[in-house]
Amino acid sequence: MSEGALAGQAAKLDAADQLRGKRDEFVLDDSVYLDGNSLGALPVGVQEKIADVISRQWGQLRIRSWDESGWWTAPERIGDRIAPLVGAGPGRIVVGDSTSVNVFKALVAAVRIARDTDAGRDEIVVDATTFPTDGYIAESAARMTGCRLVPVAPGDVRDVIGPRTAVVLLNHADYRTGRLHDLPGLTAAVHDAGALVVWDLCHTAGALPVGLDAHGVDLAVGCTYKYLNGGPGSPAYIYVREELQDRFDSPLPGWNSHAEPFGMRPRFEAADGAVRGRVGTPDILSMLALDAALDVWDGVSIEAVRAKSLALTDFFVECVGAYVPAGRVEVLTPAAHAERGSQVALRCQDAGDVMRRLVDQGVVGDFRAPDVLRFGFTPLYVGFADVERAAGVLARTLGESAG
Amino acid sequence: MSEGALAGQAAKLDAADQLRGKRDEFVLDDSVYLDGNSLGALPVGVQEKIADVISRQWGQLRIRSWDESGWWTAPERIGDRIAPLVGAGPGRIVVGDSTSVNVFKALVAAVRIARDTDAGRDEIVVDATTFPTDGYIAESAARMTGCRLVPVAPGDVRDVIGPRTAVVLLNHADYRTGRLHDLPGLTAAVHDAGALVVWDLCHTAGALPVGLDAHGVDLAVGCTYKYLNGGPGSPAYIYVREELQDRFDSPLPGWNSHAEPFGMRPRFEAADGAVRGRVGTPDILSMLALDAALDVWDGVSIEAVRAKSLALTDFFVECVGAYVPAGRVEVLTPAAHAERGSQVALRCQDAGDVMRRLVDQGVVGDFRAPDVLRFGFTPLYVGFADVERAAGVLARTLGESAG
Repeated sequence: MSEGALAGQAAKLDAADQLRGKRDEFVLDDSVYLDGNSLGALPVGVQEKIADVISRQWGQLRIRSWDESGWWTAPERIGDRIAPLVGAGPGRIVVGDSTSVNVFKALVAAVRIARDTDAGRDEIVVDATTFPTDGYIAESAARMTGCRLVPVAPGDVRDVIGPRTAVVLLNHADYRTGRLHDLPGLTAAVHDAGALVVWDLCHTAGALPVGLDAHGVDLAVGCTYKYLNGGPGSPAYIYVREELQDRFDSPLPGWNSHAEPFGMRPRFEAADGAVRGRVGTPDILSMLALDAALDVWDGVSIEAVRAKSLALTDFFVECVGAYVPAGRVEVLTPAAHAERGSQVALRCQDAGDVMRRLVDQGVVGDFRAPDVLRFGFTPLYVGFADVERAAGVLARTLGESAG
Repeated sequence: MSEGALAGQAAKLDAADQLRGKRDEFVLDDSVYLDGNSLGALPVGVQEKIADVISRQWGQLRIRSWDESGWWTAPERIGDRIAPLVGAGPGRIVVGDSTSVNVFKALVAAVRIARDTDAGRDEIVVDATTFPTDGYIAESAARMTGCRLVPVAPGDVRDVIGPRTAVVLLNHADYRTGRLHDLPGLTAAVHDAGALVVWDLCHTAGALPVGLDAHGVDLAVGCTYKYLNGGPGSPAYIYVREELQDRFDSPLPGWNSHAEPFGMRPRFEAADGAVRGRVGTPDILSMLALDAALDVWDGVSIEAVRAKSLALTDFFVECVGAYVPAGRVEVLTPAAHAERGSQVALRCQDAGDVMRRLVDQGVVGDFRAPDVLRFGFTPLYVGFADVERAAGVLARTLGESAG
């Protein structure tokens, strides 16, 4: 299709977009921001909320805000706000700490549960193509629990799991290629092997339905600064399946996970429920910025978000195909909807240089070494005209350099 | 001394107070805020700084702020700002995570260093009167490293340390009584036993000189929301002695502690220096609020803060002695300056009820179960007239109830 035809198609798609009004709830500018898979754009309500948190809650109420402003219970209250976006019932998610720290909690707790049933389970299987921090933390969890680490491509998980597997750590979507892994199928396969599964939802929460409860996922973790737009380094979360909560034995039993935190008891006694996933005092400013950011989800169905996400990535691939000379880039992201997250990754040898030039022209994606251009599509604020424009700028930029 | 005479003395002490001008750098009101040992008051510069972080750094620069706004290096840069307050050289402190998580990193890393030299060291000694989270985390660290946990009163540490001791975890000041422990002497004693020491500075950093480098402390952790006024749940920090940094082997080796974090390498290789104490993506809003809060330390010597702190607590005990009927409360905080932090703890049977009534009258301290009234004195914003007024309100309140 010609450039004019695709621009016309973009206008039609935007006109029919039921999520289009959500765009006004974000602070945007003239650039095309396709990096929401790294740091989501700023929701307009955050500034005012945090101004109140600082000036009134901290500045005036001070210590009283732990009760009166609901600071103390924010980790579980905000967890309950994230829950419907990932298909979890209330009381299963708590917010706090970084994704890395939550991966550690989840893996160690999973190994303990697995061994409690069968002491012979001494292997942690981990996605060998994972975002590195998951692999590093898995290695530490293996070392500290006396397990063997088994790195394997997600496609080969079924070949390595068995009676020695304690837990399998998988990414719902590959951070590099955007490939979506089969959460229901892999979860079932891990369960068939008698093991537990931990899913890392960093690249899918807020972009597509996850169905944690429905698929019987044991544990999950995720960050909140990508498609959930919580702000730079906003706290991560941990999900614990309801049936496992009373067996969740955290390696980080801080005072916030105690049954009676203000009892100041020398002996640890774990709280009931997902609160066991809490550790120390929560970082209130970052956490309440996330709380405000979650307001943009009011009235939004995650199914509608998924439908638009697929339409956006389909359209981007179509525009790239039409505009970019054949062979100049390789699309790494699968064409099949069932295998695609909410990003498109393109491989080209001069990706680092190309991305710098795209950013200079107001098309913001990111570069992952050594040769990947990543473009993330956040359905709440990215439109189809943005997509067409980004593909056009990309094509011209690629055409200007040798490749 | 009579009430009038003590009020006159307060006015003289305030007039001679060289730190008095610092009070204007905090948001205060008509109450007497003696709970800065739990949550420090709001420094005036925080609001504007965070408004800029949200609207410009996140809202406009977005992902570029990781470089352009210095987000990525904030943990070590802000660590270097805290360093002079606790007697540490640059490059020894990184900010991030909660105190509990940092206690875990410090203890496990210390056990690994101790065992690397002497595999027979299998005991973690912990202050039995510690703030509970340290004890819970120490128990977990012991369990995960195959050590035995030895809880002991700080005064008895010298009796239990020996060839099996790997590490000793101590609080610089007791959170309940305000007793200051002998950091130089206990550090030397632990070293004489061939073990490492981890100090928890939550109740002393920003209130008195610590001298981490000078006293050869191995590892230290602390929160930043008490005397450092970083805001609710602002990130904690970890100190690693320079000579130990290349042996610091973290149990939480997240991607932020990798030698080349954006290399996205499957194999972990630790960064040089205190950066090894980092884990995942830092919580930028909470961290940069702390950064702004640290501006109040410009031109302040920690020795001057200590001198005023002792004068404040001396004066409070004097006023309490003069105003409160004998026997109505017991002063738990030691009289000797060398054994006193920056708080005064009073025991009375109806402490919970008394504190509620004090707060209603604008004298804000806190209650620690079962029978302790805690009053914290932050020299940067508490004055001597505040102290006299608080003692007067306390005496009247105690007089109105049976006790």
